[in-house]
Amino acid sequence: MGLFRAGGVVYKPVEELDLGPNSNELYVEANIKAPRMGGFLAKIVAWILESRIFGTLVLYMLKRMNRVHTFISNATLEEPPMFVPLHPFVDLHEQEVMEIHCDASASEKVQQAVDCLPLTLENSLDTSKPGCFRRWTIMDYSRAYKSGEITPLKVAELFIDAVRESSSSPLPVCFFINYDPEDILRQAAESTLRYERGAPISALDGVPIAVKDEIDCSPYPTTGGTKWLHKVRPCTGDACCIARLRSCGAILVGKTNMHELGATPSGTNPHYGAPRNPYDPSRISGGSSSGSAAIVSAGLCPAALGVDGGGSVRMPASLSGVVGFKPTFGRIPHSGVIPLNWTVGMVGILAGTLEDAFIVYAAISGALPSEETTTLPPKVHFPLLNSTNPISNIKLARYGAWFNDCNEEVRLCCSNALQLLCEHYHWKAVEVTIPEIEVMRLAHYVTIGSECSSSLSSYLENLDRSELGWDTRIAVDIYSAFDSNEYIKAQKLRYRHMQIHNKIFTKAEVIVTPTTGMTAYPITKDALTTGELDYINGATIIRYQIAGNFLGLPAVTVPVGYDKAGLPIGLQFIGKPWSEPTLMHIALAMQALCITNYRKPKVFYDILDKK
Amino acid sequence: MGLFRAGGVVYKPVEELDLGPNSNELYVEANIKAPRMGGFLAKIVAWILESRIFGTLVLYMLKRMNRVHTFISNATLEEPPMFVPLHPFVDLHEQEVMEIHCDASASEKVQQAVDCLPLTLENSLDTSKPGCFRRWTIMDYSRAYKSGEITPLKVAELFIDAVRESSSSPLPVCFFINYDPEDILRQAAESTLRYERGAPISALDGVPIAVKDEIDCSPYPTTGGTKWLHKVRPCTGDACCIARLRSCGAILVGKTNMHELGATPSGTNPHYGAPRNPYDPSRISGGSSSGSAAIVSAGLCPAALGVDGGGSVRMPASLSGVVGFKPTFGRIPHSGVIPLNWTVGMVGILAGTLEDAFIVYAAISGALPSEETTTLPPKVHFPLLNSTNPISNIKLARYGAWFNDCNEEVRLCCSNALQLLCEHYHWKAVEVTIPEIEVMRLAHYVTIGSECSSSLSSYLENLDRSELGWDTRIAVDIYSAFDSNEYIKAQKLRYRHMQIHNKIFTKAEVIVTPTTGMTAYPITKDALTTGELDYINGATIIRYQIAGNFLGLPAVTVPVGYDKAGLPIGLQFIGKPWSEPTLMHIALAMQALCITNYRKPKVFYDILDKK
Repeated sequence: MGLFRAGGVVYKPVEELDLGPNSNELYVEANIKAPRMGGFLAKIVAWILESRIFGTLVLYMLKRMNRVHTFISNATLEEPPMFVPLHPFVDLHEQEVMEIHCDASASEKVQQAVDCLPLTLENSLDTSKPGCFRRWTIMDYSRAYKSGEITPLKVAELFIDAVRESSSSPLPVCFFINYDPEDILRQAAESTLRYERGAPISALDGVPIAVKDEIDCSPYPTTGGTKWLHKVRPCTGDACCIARLRSCGAILVGKTNMHELGATPSGTNPHYGAPRNPYDPSRISGGSSSGSAAIVSAGLCPAALGVDGGGSVRMPASLSGVVGFKPTFGRIPHSGVIPLNWTVGMVGILAGTLEDAFIVYAAISGALPSEETTTLPPKVHFPLLNSTNPISNIKLARYGAWFNDCNEEVRLCCSNALQLLCEHYHWKAVEVTIPEIEVMRLAHYVTIGSECSSSLSSYLENLDRSELGWDTRIAVDIYSAFDSNEYIKAQKLRYRHMQIHNKIFTKAEVIVTPTTGMTAYPITKDALTTGELDYINGATIIRYQIAGNFLGLPAVTVPVGYDKAGLPIGLQFIGKPWSEPTLMHIALAMQALCITNYRKPKVFYDILDKK
Repeated sequence: MGLFRAGGVVYKPVEELDLGPNSNELYVEANIKAPRMGGFLAKIVAWILESRIFGTLVLYMLKRMNRVHTFISNATLEEPPMFVPLHPFVDLHEQEVMEIHCDASASEKVQQAVDCLPLTLENSLDTSKPGCFRRWTIMDYSRAYKSGEITPLKVAELFIDAVRESSSSPLPVCFFINYDPEDILRQAAESTLRYERGAPISALDGVPIAVKDEIDCSPYPTTGGTKWLHKVRPCTGDACCIARLRSCGAILVGKTNMHELGATPSGTNPHYGAPRNPYDPSRISGGSSSGSAAIVSAGLCPAALGVDGGGSVRMPASLSGVVGFKPTFGRIPHSGVIPLNWTVGMVGILAGTLEDAFIVYAAISGALPSEETTTLPPKVHFPLLNSTNPISNIKLARYGAWFNDCNEEVRLCCSNALQLLCEHYHWKAVEVTIPEIEVMRLAHYVTIGSECSSSLSSYLENLDRSELGWDTRIAVDIYSAFDSNEYIKAQKLRYRHMQIHNKIFTKAEVIVTPTTGMTAYPITKDALTTGELDYINGATIIRYQIAGNFLGLPAVTVPVGYDKAGLPIGLQFIGKPWSEPTLMHIALAMQALCITNYRKPKVFYDILDKK
């Protein structure tokens, strides 16, 4: 890292950092000096932080105790700031890819993606084995619709029944903030007509897809998990990604629940309830895209959209036992997403399988025509997942001290999965050292907090604070505590970490980590009413997420096993900018080795089985 | 502009702004609520601001009184932030240009530039006219060296004598912070040898060029106008622009005086003296590149480099009666310049004539090979200034209320010059409205202040404050007062203003303004010892500068006349991104109409005449 001087770190030049396995760069554990806050404590803390003078003092102390002063405010580093992690496009000459021009329509891209898929998934599953479980995929829907086994309208009706059932159960799952049966049936009827005419638009025609309530989607308001944001920021039409899905014939089934303003990884929302984990409804499904994760896990949709500003797609995917995929920053147009930040967040995909994530990715990825002339790539590369030449010579970077900084069961499960992967495909795990991981977490926090605060400041100024959950009140008070020096220093650290990661990527194609440091934790009673801020569990869950957001790198999580309580565990692969194809090849390989052991969630709706 | 709500402006969408001449968008004058601070008052104010609690309170009040709260902190606007004004390169298909690839060496580019010049400048000057004055140009030096009339060594000796003379005069001009006669003579001897061998490197071979002490140039330290910065940030070699000039054979004659840390436009430095205005040594030469402006104006160098973060090249050029040229952001590599900011500042050129500014521009412009693959243009376009087809159909946008917000003599002189220009070339002045000019000034101030503060924070933490001038102490205290919300809001306003300016540029090729709102003001005694902060005069001087920095637009100032006291007045042209050729064509046309009336400064050294 470097020396300490006058209360701050003097960072060494990146060239002097040893990134090898025997580096003497120390792994610094998170040092969270903020207790879990829920219930009465949350109310008191919010009250203190909102008092002008005392609150300022407490925030100053909090920054000091949590090392923001040491690692960021008073730090000395030579790097220039990197404000936006938008990487110049470089053709990586990846193995087994197909080049698609951005001019292609969304439905054309979906067809290209389907052409890249292995013919069927069933081969890899021994369905005769008792307990063997798999979710219905987009291609299952497509085949069933084409063959006439079932119609989109029938699926929509079953879907609506299931949602009704889920909300009247003793532990309501609270998938949605808003969903409109009438709108769903209308879309399904149109899709059914297309199939009757023998002219479905694409493989996504009639497939139910849910949308995090942070993305504009007609006819719904966009609440961002709040009780008020949609009133001051009305939704005026579909976001770009939604318009693309709609143009493929997908049925947009409603706006999923989320943590209010995406403020924490628990996903629990005091206004709209807690989206419960289908593997154990007494536990969180993870956030902030909690409803999207839960609904896919529970089998109601093969895929859903989330937004990932600090792991908000990958964390709930991992905790709920599904695939979560966040492409390179800029790969999916951001227009029509609530601008809670501008430089870390992006639309991501939650899906039952990697193949389904790929199909949805195909539909929504690619620069807008107006962006193409600037810095975004004019092409997308798709992985030839059906290739008979599996990709070879893959090296996976593993930073042992970091990889192992998680609970015992997660560590064992992820280590085994990685070993299995390497042995089966003759790939190689390369030991590396990635310095200053904890610094990057703090710098990302300063960044996302500052941007969220600036985005909302003019609304919050006029808002009755009681409209906010208590946890979110505390979060936005902390967000507003950063000065411009801290924000700019964080951007300098962003540049620094991009250099560090570029060097790691000369040693390996991807970085491999557990997705979260723990499995899903229980939902407490106070969290249901006041919300909760659990910075200690939060830091454990978010530990491996930051590079995907702060550096704009693509990343994917795949379920690889379960802990003793039966809660899902995910393994994450982080790639170079624009290396989605390699990432998908690797994730599919991992999935192929684990899929036969996938378990059925306790809460599961067999939509297609009921046909 | 928009409504007001809860203490902040709610900005209208840009599409709803009327940018025509009869717009009802009000012109908002600067409303500076900070008195001139020098001498004892400066000391008291610094002392107050440095007291933790009272200082914070005063800064809060200052922001409120100066409308930062209204226009920025509490503002509501939909625009995303634009952190860096780096515009995607677009070939503008300008008239009468020549395309040069960035691969060309600096000396090749200089030769190309020379080929673009009119054969001789003398034609336009009636040298028999009494009082007719012109400075020696780079081509004059080149011709004199080639013909053997004089050698670079002789010029260097005369130069050193003149500097010695200037510093022993009753009002020492204080051109330099550091200059080394031995190093100058060594370079001159080498150049002389090249001419003797008949092999000069380029038209710049042997030409004296001075360098603002904010740019690294061996063998000198880089002080940034301070007594301490060079100790904590040692100069380790030439900046990129300096290496390019050196490769052309230019003689780098030393490091010019500047305002400490470039903090204000007066250019007066309590540590190294006040660079005096050659047209009236009792007055400022303008800053922050004060020494570079004074030395060119006084005839010691045909050109000098400055750095322009808030008009710091164009303002002193205008006040000292020379040409000042700031290219598009990113056009000149910034490596080796003190990083006092990252998103507004750039190397600029001060020169006796537009042609000389062009030659130096040719030597130092163009992306580094490492930058080319990203967003910077791979080519430079040069204006064919020798074309027999003068460019036609030029439209110059003029915002009357803004253009006229300056002192009477400046207004008259600039209006006359513009009228003369339009009549002579059959060009057209188009009346427009550019809303929110004052907002842009404040947003730029928040930006440059925050970045400077972050750049220096780790140094200042360890610095004995008495090492700083009193004026700079106050400036850095104010710089540190901005929070991250204010910084990000300022970046949103940057995006907004880029949209506004893009719309203006659909109506005209350039925007035309006076360069400064007043002519050079007197140097007071207290400023010499404590430095001074004169926000009221400062705002008048900086009024027309901001778009060049905040939006990264290219801009050039040309001397067009004098006030009754004989002080120079400049006219400024602001162009579209990457439109340097058009800008130079227009500036040359303006210069051609004014050059016969140029006056000799009171302090002037006839280096070549003494041969």
